[in-house]
Formats: sequence, structure tokens, C-alpha cells
Amino acid sequence: MPGKTPSDSVVQVNSNYLKLKAGYLFPEIARRVKSFSEANPNSALIRLGIGDVTEPLPLACREAMKAAIDEMGTNAGFHGYGPEQGYGWLRDAIAKHDFQARGCQISPEEIFVSDGSKCDSSNILDILGSGNRIAVTDPVYPVYVDSNVMAGRTGEAGDNGRYGGLSYLPISADNGFAAQIPNEPVDLIYLCFPNNPTGAVATKEQLKAWVDFARSNGSLILFDAAYEAFIQDPGLPHSIYEIEGARDCAIEFRSFSKNAGFTGTRCAFTVVPKGLKGKADDGSEVELWGLWNRRQSTKFNGVSYIIQRGAEAVYSDQGQQEIKALVNFYMENAAIIRRELSAAGIEVHGGEHAPYVWLKTPSGIDSWGFFDHLLQKANVVGTPGSGFGAAGEGYFRLSAFNSRANVDEAMRRIRAL
Amino acid sequence: MPGKTPSDSVVQVNSNYLKLKAGYLFPEIARRVKSFSEANPNSALIRLGIGDVTEPLPLACREAMKAAIDEMGTNAGFHGYGPEQGYGWLRDAIAKHDFQARGCQISPEEIFVSDGSKCDSSNILDILGSGNRIAVTDPVYPVYVDSNVMAGRTGEAGDNGRYGGLSYLPISADNGFAAQIPNEPVDLIYLCFPNNPTGAVATKEQLKAWVDFARSNGSLILFDAAYEAFIQDPGLPHSIYEIEGARDCAIEFRSFSKNAGFTGTRCAFTVVPKGLKGKADDGSEVELWGLWNRRQSTKFNGVSYIIQRGAEAVYSDQGQQEIKALVNFYMENAAIIRRELSAAGIEVHGGEHAPYVWLKTPSGIDSWGFFDHLLQKANVVGTPGSGFGAAGEGYFRLSAFNSRANVDEAMRRIRAL
Repeated sequence: MPGKTPSDSVVQVNSNYLKLKAGYLFPEIARRVKSFSEANPNSALIRLGIGDVTEPLPLACREAMKAAIDEMGTNAGFHGYGPEQGYGWLRDAIAKHDFQARGCQISPEEIFVSDGSKCDSSNILDILGSGNRIAVTDPVYPVYVDSNVMAGRTGEAGDNGRYGGLSYLPISADNGFAAQIPNEPVDLIYLCFPNNPTGAVATKEQLKAWVDFARSNGSLILFDAAYEAFIQDPGLPHSIYEIEGARDCAIEFRSFSKNAGFTGTRCAFTVVPKGLKGKADDGSEVELWGLWNRRQSTKFNGVSYIIQRGAEAVYSDQGQQEIKALVNFYMENAAIIRRELSAAGIEVHGGEHAPYVWLKTPSGIDSWGFFDHLLQKANVVGTPGSGFGAAGEGYFRLSAFNSRANVDEAMRRIRAL
Repeated sequence: MPGKTPSDSVVQVNSNYLKLKAGYLFPEIARRVKSFSEANPNSALIRLGIGDVTEPLPLACREAMKAAIDEMGTNAGFHGYGPEQGYGWLRDAIAKHDFQARGCQISPEEIFVSDGSKCDSSNILDILGSGNRIAVTDPVYPVYVDSNVMAGRTGEAGDNGRYGGLSYLPISADNGFAAQIPNEPVDLIYLCFPNNPTGAVATKEQLKAWVDFARSNGSLILFDAAYEAFIQDPGLPHSIYEIEGARDCAIEFRSFSKNAGFTGTRCAFTVVPKGLKGKADDGSEVELWGLWNRRQSTKFNGVSYIIQRGAEAVYSDQGQQEIKALVNFYMENAAIIRRELSAAGIEVHGGEHAPYVWLKTPSGIDSWGFFDHLLQKANVVGTPGSGFGAAGEGYFRLSAFNSRANVDEAMRRIRAL
């Protein structure tokens, strides 16, 4: 309207977003790398920072997706809206191969197919109350914390970067990277094994202690198993549902991102057992399955038919062979990183059942100092441990996701330092 | 733990979910259709209910996705995590073709690519405060209401199905399907044009009145333009940004679902203009672009590279020809439905710039009564108007998304009643 002055905005924003620390880890890394690259345009950087796969997508998945595209070009084979929970054939394959084959009594309808574990592990807060007491490990995958901040489930951040209202459970070499079971009651517990960022694993006994704690306290475990495919020891659990009683106290997040190289293809899933309950404000018990089903039906439209066919192919004989080869390839990278760093006198953790090597920074240098050192002297990009939490200070993460040539060259440069 | 009794759950659920009415519209339709089909296994049902496309995916999109899959099979062409906001080449194509070509000053970085408008139009509440006063039309796309209920932005539902705390703006033949601008201030206003479910459109003058209202009240318009491709009259606006001042007061949702048949392929986008502001609890003004960017970066991993290449192909010359043919095909269906229902003496609305025909139920029969009548006597499935809101009572929606043969046959049966 000519001459009209718009009023000040009145619409309220979610002020919890203003509590977030400005420098989210990976953008800060990107900023330093960009600055270095501009000053040193001829340097050949090797990126072992962000946990992103590099090898081609399995042929079985590619062929299945192409066949799905051909179907979509016909009247008879066209697929419009699919079930928000995922197609039955994919949920069947997941339940059978990932759970029932390992003795876990998970049914297909307890599987919710999605476009990513990052989405699921943050969206899960939608169905949970704002009064829950929350525990996370430290260091921790930042999304667990930030999604709680954004949802108003925390206080402000302190000087050490920790948010008020969260219980932080330190994991470090001092406690063998096994989080201590808390003394005070907590309602939501985020666990990730094999762990990002430390590469640590949990034994059945350790998970059983968590399940027992959760059951006796009425808590809910949010279990992130995105890296289970990298487990080498057949005695280690791949799923929390390998532990008796876990159906009563745990939701599990899984992904095709790392086992099948789907980081750019996008498919994951979440397991919500039937019978798993929480408490409503009126004191009644409510099944989480029904709430999550309603959440997904209302706020999500399911994963692309084409992509779901690609994910289904992961479970074919050929797909299984191909993903085993991918995992083996990355784990060989991890073994090289462990061996070469050890030879260089650096203390290493992880990398045996996970694609991450978690190293102790040498000579007491801090995490960001080591980041800058590696970047400038070896032109290698990693991730500072302190970016994952206060207890990550003095540690540094190197990812095994890269070509063999790049891993070899990065190790040669680090050893030459 | 043998013999151990788990404690009652203590973890709190989001009790707002318990306010949701049990019978969400489309599940209730599915239940009635299933019951009828089981009792009448030989009936040949024709579904004109849910707004789901039926025709094959454009060849341009299929070829682009196959080429992307081939790339993903090579080391050089493999794509891992992409930008959470979408690839630059897709954002460029969208900004240029959908906005700049129509005189809207929308830049690529204001475009956020996503997997669906249903997700975006409900997720947008994440960045908005809980104290906002909300207005929706009645009838309305149920997701706008349910996502507010789930986020605790409403009171309980009353006997008429309306939730406390929401302002309902009736749209019906009585007001020419143009919602009256409210007398009281509201902070968030959901508008959808061309409208789902009524098929009504808004002129530039009508949208200008909304933009002026929003600007003078400091309100935010959430504008759903998922059906803009069906507009036939070149004088009608496709985007709210065709209205001067809209950049200061509106977010727009767009989708490839209906124009390019992507309901099962999944790609959409949301426009958040830079400079669009809301107010924080401390009174400061905050840019919504930054909040949405942070939300998407933290809680979303971007759309599949393969699917984004398919969406990009919508903007190729071949893609544009193919989607025009798809839209024309469905609009011919709509014209047939309008003509045949009119000839049967039924009052029809919509269907001229939208794939939905909104008919007045004959003889004062209520919406669900007409649903059952059509289902049992003509074996045709539609959607009861009352399912979209109290003011939809006495109306009924038929979708133009079906084969020509099915539309012709459905109309033959209805005329024979």
C-alpha cells in the first residue's frame, strides 16, 4: 500500500533458538578450511572430518532404483502417495534381516521408514513431554543436544558450552568410554553404540545395565545404532533389542547412510515397539507407537518409492555382499589410521568396530589447536573433540570414510610431522 | 533381570496428542471403503477421494534420475551428504522459473528444498512461538490444524470439532469462498490458493487485502501454493510474492507433487524471504530465514540427490511440456466432472483452476450421508466436506486425479443415480 508503513512484527518466534551456540561444529570447520584454502590455493586437502561416505552406491541398489523409475513411467506401475510408515515389503525385510535374524522380536509394523536418523532422532521429541529429565553422553552427537535446545527442553548454555537442565555423562579414556549410569533419575537417555564420535562400543552386559536402569526408573532409552554394521566382534550387540526387557524401555534409530552409502540417497528407519508406554499429564499410560504413528502420518509423507526400492535391495544376496565389501573397505581404512597413528606415538581409541578413530591430541595441545596444526602442516581435515562436548577436549576424531589413496597419503603426512 | 518388575513408565508423553480427534478424515474413509469392499468384493470402486495423482512420471524426470543413479555408481560422480537447503542448481532453477519469471524478487538462497509440503507446513511451527494467535479457514487442509494441536497451540476440541484457541474463517458459497479478513488481530494466518478442498482461487486484490492486513498487524501469512500449476486464468496470482509487500509478511509452500506427479517421488520447497522478521521473548526482532536455516540444518539432511535431479528436470523444456500436458489432462477431467454434475442438477464449485470440484450435496443430505450414498449406489469414493471442517458440512469434494476412463465411468454412474 503506497506510503503505508508496516507495523513492527508481532508474530512470535521460538526464542529457544536464540540459546543455540552460534558456531555449530561443522560450519566452523568449513569456515576454517575455506579460509585456509583461499590462502593456500595449491594445497591438496584430505578431508577426514565429517562422517560422510565416499564409495559408489551398491549396484544392487542402483539397479533396483532404476527398475522402480521404469515402473513409475507406466500407468500400471505408477506409485503415488505411499504409506507414511514405509512400504510393507521394506518393513518386512528390515524386521527379518536386522532383527529377527538376531533373535530380536521386532515385527514389521514396529518399523517406521524415514528419510534420515537425524530427522528421526530430533523429531522423536515431538511425542515426548517437556518435563522429561534428559541425559546425554559427553562427547555427544550434537543433534541430540541441539534438538532439545530448540524444543525448549534445556536452559541456557554455560561457559563450558553445556546447557542447563541436561545431565551430561562423561565418556573418556578414564572410564573406558563407558558412561556411568547416573545416580539421579533421568527420563530420556540418549545412547549411541558404536559411538559417534569416540568409536567405542557397548557390550551386552553394559547395555543390560542401561536397560535395567531404564526399566526400574521408568525411563526411555533413545538408542542410535547407525553404525552397527561396522561391528567386527560377533559377541557385541547390534541392536538394543538383543537385551531382554529393551522392548519396554527403548526406541532404536537405524540408517542406510553408513552401511550402504546412502548419505546422499536418504533412507533410515526407527523402531518403536508396541507396548512401550509413557505417561500423560492426567497420569494415564499411553503407547508411544500410536503417538509416533500419528506424528508420522500427520507431519510426514513417507520416503520416495524409488528410494525405498533401493533400500530393499540392500537385503538381497547381492546387496548384502556389496555392503559387506563397503564396510570392510572402510574398516581397513580405520585399521590403517590406527596403525599409523600408533606408530607415530599417538594414543588411539575406536576404529575397531566403528568408522571413527578417536585420538588423544599429543603434547597436551587442545582440540582446536590440533585441528589447526593438522590443517596447516599436513593439510588434513579432522574434527576437534571439543566440538562434541566439553569432555571431548584433548581428543580429535578422524573418519575412515575416504579412498585408500587419500587415507594412505594423510597418514604419510601425519607421520612426517 | 529375572523376577524384576519394571516400574511404571515415568517418561512423559506430549499430552497434546490426546486432544486429536481419533478419526482423522482419510483413515475413516479408508475404513468405510474397506468395509464396503469386503461386503461387495465384486464392485469396481472408482476413487476420487484423496488428492493423489495417477499418471506416469514425466520422462524428463525419469531420465534425469537414472542419469543421477549412474553418477552415484562412480567414484567421481558419487554424492554423499548434500546441502540441507538443497543443491544450488535446483534452487537456481526454482527461483528463476517459478518466481523471477513472474516478477517476484525471490533469490535462490531463499528457497529451501524439502521432501514435502506436508512436512514443511507443519515443521514451520518449530521456529514460531507458542503464544501466537492462529487463523485457519474452515474448511481447511487438516494438517494445518492437527500440527498446531500436536504442538500445543490450541485448546481442546469442541462438539463441532473446532479446537479452542484457533480463529476459524468460514469459506462457503455464501461468501464466494473468500475468507473474511478477521476483525481481531491474529499472528499466523494459513491461506491455501488455489484452495484445497474447495478449489476456490484468490485474485490479486484479495491477496493484497491479506498482505495489507498482515503488514499492518505484524502478522505472518503461511501461504500454501501447492496447486498453483492448475491456474488457467493468466490474471490470477501463482505466488503471494506477486503482491507488493508480501516479502515482509509471508512464507510460501510449493510442491512438485501435483504439477509433476511427485506424490510418490517426494520433493517440495519452502520460500522464506530474507528480512522477514518475528519477535523474540526479549522484544528483539529476529530473521525467520536464519531460524528456518538452523532448523533445517539441525533436523533435516536434505533431499536425495537423485530426486533433486528429477525435480530439476521439471524446469527443462521437455519437463515443462510434460507437466503442462499432465495439468491439462487433469483439468480436462475436472471440466468433465463439473459438466456432468451440473447436468445432473448438482451445484458445483471449483474445478476451474484447481484439480478439486467442490459440490453442494443434493437435497440437504449431509456430507457423510452423501459419501455413503455415492459409495453404495455408484461405487464412487469422494471426500465428505465436513471432514475438512464444520463449515464444509453439506459439501463434498471430488478429485480430478484419475484416468479418463474412470472419470467418465464415475460420472455415468452418478448421473444414473
